Amino acid sequence: MRMVDIIEKKRDGQELTKAEINFVITGYTKGTVPDYQMSALAMAIYFKDMTNQEITDLTMAMVESGEQIDLSAIHGIKVDKHSTGGVGDTTTLVLAPLVAAVGVPVAKMSGRGLGHTGGTIDKLEAIKGFNVEISNDEFIQLVNRDQVAVVGQSGDLAPADKKLYGLRDVTGTVDSIALIASSIMSKKIAAGADAIVLDVTTGDGAFMKNEKDAERLAKTMVQIGKLANRQTMAIISDMSQPLGLAIGNSLEVKEAIDALKGEGPADLMEMVYVLGSQMVVLAKQADTLEEARELLKEAIQSGAATTKFKEMIRNQGGDDSIVDRPENLPQAEFVIELPAKESGYISEMVADQLGIAAMLLGAGRRTKEDTIDYSVGLMLHKKVGDSVTAGEPLVTVYANSQAIDDVKTKIYENIFITKEKVAEPTLIHQIITE
Amino acid sequence: MRMVDIIEKKRDGQELTKAEINFVITGYTKGTVPDYQMSALAMAIYFKDMTNQEITDLTMAMVESGEQIDLSAIHGIKVDKHSTGGVGDTTTLVLAPLVAAVGVPVAKMSGRGLGHTGGTIDKLEAIKGFNVEISNDEFIQLVNRDQVAVVGQSGDLAPADKKLYGLRDVTGTVDSIALIASSIMSKKIAAGADAIVLDVTTGDGAFMKNEKDAERLAKTMVQIGKLANRQTMAIISDMSQPLGLAIGNSLEVKEAIDALKGEGPADLMEMVYVLGSQMVVLAKQADTLEEARELLKEAIQSGAATTKFKEMIRNQGGDDSIVDRPENLPQAEFVIELPAKESGYISEMVADQLGIAAMLLGAGRRTKEDTIDYSVGLMLHKKVGDSVTAGEPLVTVYANSQAIDDVKTKIYENIFITKEKVAEPTLIHQIITE
Repeated sequence: MRMVDIIEKKRDGQELTKAEINFVITGYTKGTVPDYQMSALAMAIYFKDMTNQEITDLTMAMVESGEQIDLSAIHGIKVDKHSTGGVGDTTTLVLAPLVAAVGVPVAKMSGRGLGHTGGTIDKLEAIKGFNVEISNDEFIQLVNRDQVAVVGQSGDLAPADKKLYGLRDVTGTVDSIALIASSIMSKKIAAGADAIVLDVTTGDGAFMKNEKDAERLAKTMVQIGKLANRQTMAIISDMSQPLGLAIGNSLEVKEAIDALKGEGPADLMEMVYVLGSQMVVLAKQADTLEEARELLKEAIQSGAATTKFKEMIRNQGGDDSIVDRPENLPQAEFVIELPAKESGYISEMVADQLGIAAMLLGAGRRTKEDTIDYSVGLMLHKKVGDSVTAGEPLVTVYANSQAIDDVKTKIYENIFITKEKVAEPTLIHQIITE
Repeated sequence: MRMVDIIEKKRDGQELTKAEINFVITGYTKGTVPDYQMSALAMAIYFKDMTNQEITDLTMAMVESGEQIDLSAIHGIKVDKHSTGGVGDTTTLVLAPLVAAVGVPVAKMSGRGLGHTGGTIDKLEAIKGFNVEISNDEFIQLVNRDQVAVVGQSGDLAPADKKLYGLRDVTGTVDSIALIASSIMSKKIAAGADAIVLDVTTGDGAFMKNEKDAERLAKTMVQIGKLANRQTMAIISDMSQPLGLAIGNSLEVKEAIDALKGEGPADLMEMVYVLGSQMVVLAKQADTLEEARELLKEAIQSGAATTKFKEMIRNQGGDDSIVDRPENLPQAEFVIELPAKESGYISEMVADQLGIAAMLLGAGRRTKEDTIDYSVGLMLHKKVGDSVTAGEPLVTVYANSQAIDDVKTKIYENIFITKEKVAEPTLIHQIITE
């Protein structure tokens, strides 16, 4: 088999065989297929796409390129959840203890954020002492005993994907549904999940700017899951504005605690119930979505959810006092209120630009080497569709510097107010199960 | 400027600026643009193509990536001729001394062949003593004194093209009109030509299998020439069957001598007159193509053409006795006649397969390291459209081994005979001057 023949075959729009895809990924991992051939193939895939069978073969080849976590020692159906990312997305932080509280085993591997704000691992590290680097044995023991543990993703999962992702980033081949879908699914499958719940975000703040692409990505990943024998479902959710009200690590942990008490913002609560009940049903802890939602509500009302969160924090060496006293989280030095400059209705809050405003404060990383300031961020007081009166608080900025004119400008420039009434955007666009 | 932005711009179908193209080629030559980005860009160009302005900018950037031969010390208009290649194509060997004989300065740099049979340089080396590696000064002196010299192409001409060509070969990006056109034209322009005559072959034995692609390539190169201030014209010629009757180095030198005496096969003679008269007119040695053709005929009839060929051979250290005694060329040990197996009309002679038959005998290189056997090859006795009687000689094989069953099989499998009369194929499909 010759790599150049495989490149030409894909370039000419033909379907690659499993053997060809294995040849490519095995060779690329070992280094016998050089970067310059891989990038040419990636560009050909960008233009000619792949069938679901090809994407599945690619996914499984990348899974097999490295370590595969064996979670079989954990009792029950292990359900993983993945979001394609957004701004102020605190869902995982709420869902991990919440579904664990109703008996779903949560053995979660999560990534750090390279973007506007931190990833789940970064948010957890805002909690003093929280250790995301525990051994595999301890990880499995914790989940078996207490249903939940969250650790940083190991470098050995799907190394082919890691290498390919780095290459795509510098060769203009990031935006391929086939390559995005296989990248996400290879990591989830290698991490040992039995079932996968996907949150594919769409809108300004998301990777998929339009719903058509989001739908294709969601459907593709659900099909890969099916072909790879993992129960998989996806929701397509709105990311035209940030989710919830908090953007920034400490602020989002606080918002997650509110949600676990049933007091989170309405859109975050709804996302938690929709994704959570899917997870509970996939884990066979309930027969119907309605039943699952009831279980989740009970866990919140009874306090079982916050108790589980405390347990999870303690288990991993963190300071669980923050659940009752969120002021124990890192606090910013300056709290600056930005009032609305006019009256009317919020028509638009540009999610990615508000994310960048938080990043400018220090809440996210520009490069892998940057360190995160957990204490800074934004609290929104309004969402799209809300009425607003001039002078009323619009956004509160949490900063460790008073020189934040660029941040203020960015915030005002990206929140639009109109005179006409504006409809609240639909949060859940679609639920895709096949 | 970032290479990834340039790749994405081309991927999205936008036109690159001259500055962007210079950034790419300068960086690629220096090594600051890595192969993996260049191959992704080449694949994007394969799919999205380039405008004539972009191709011209790419051509000139590659010209400027290395040495440019200064032929200004040679009096007159230097006309170069390039063929996109074929089987049994002896035209250059005839044209160099012939147009020199009517006063056109021929300062020819030529390549070795990597394909079915040798390139012009290989064919000249079939002549004992012929030296293709002479200094630039001597080269210019010879052309100024005797109008003609043919040397091997220097490694420093258009090094960016050389590097890119090697990369395209292994990344499925050879078949791009934009990249083929800029590759050819960059070498011709760097070699110092004032005017360029292009022979774009089409058909089974050519790089461009269909006429539509050949026409696009020809028109593109003529436009590049115009934009780069080089008078350029192209003919599109038939390569559905081999040109002339000889395939193989000594055999083609002998055929070239025949042509210089006016006794070459009809199709080769016609190609020589068509291309030659274009060269004579571009060099302003005649006002019209008809006048030019007359000059060429006179040079042949008077013996000036063969005299010039002898002079050229002597000037470069070769044994000029071969012109009068072609048997002094390397001769094969075995001469094997292949008779026609049935009667009828020749309907097809698959050029590239017959070229491969000659290569199997040793007439061409499979890899750069192979050495050529100058003495071997094929002589056809028929061309498409000719009538043939069973038992009549069809092909004569010149070999240095009698174990040539594979060659015989390949020849018989690729010459088709039908009962119906077959029209002779048109040799010159189009002449393109803009």
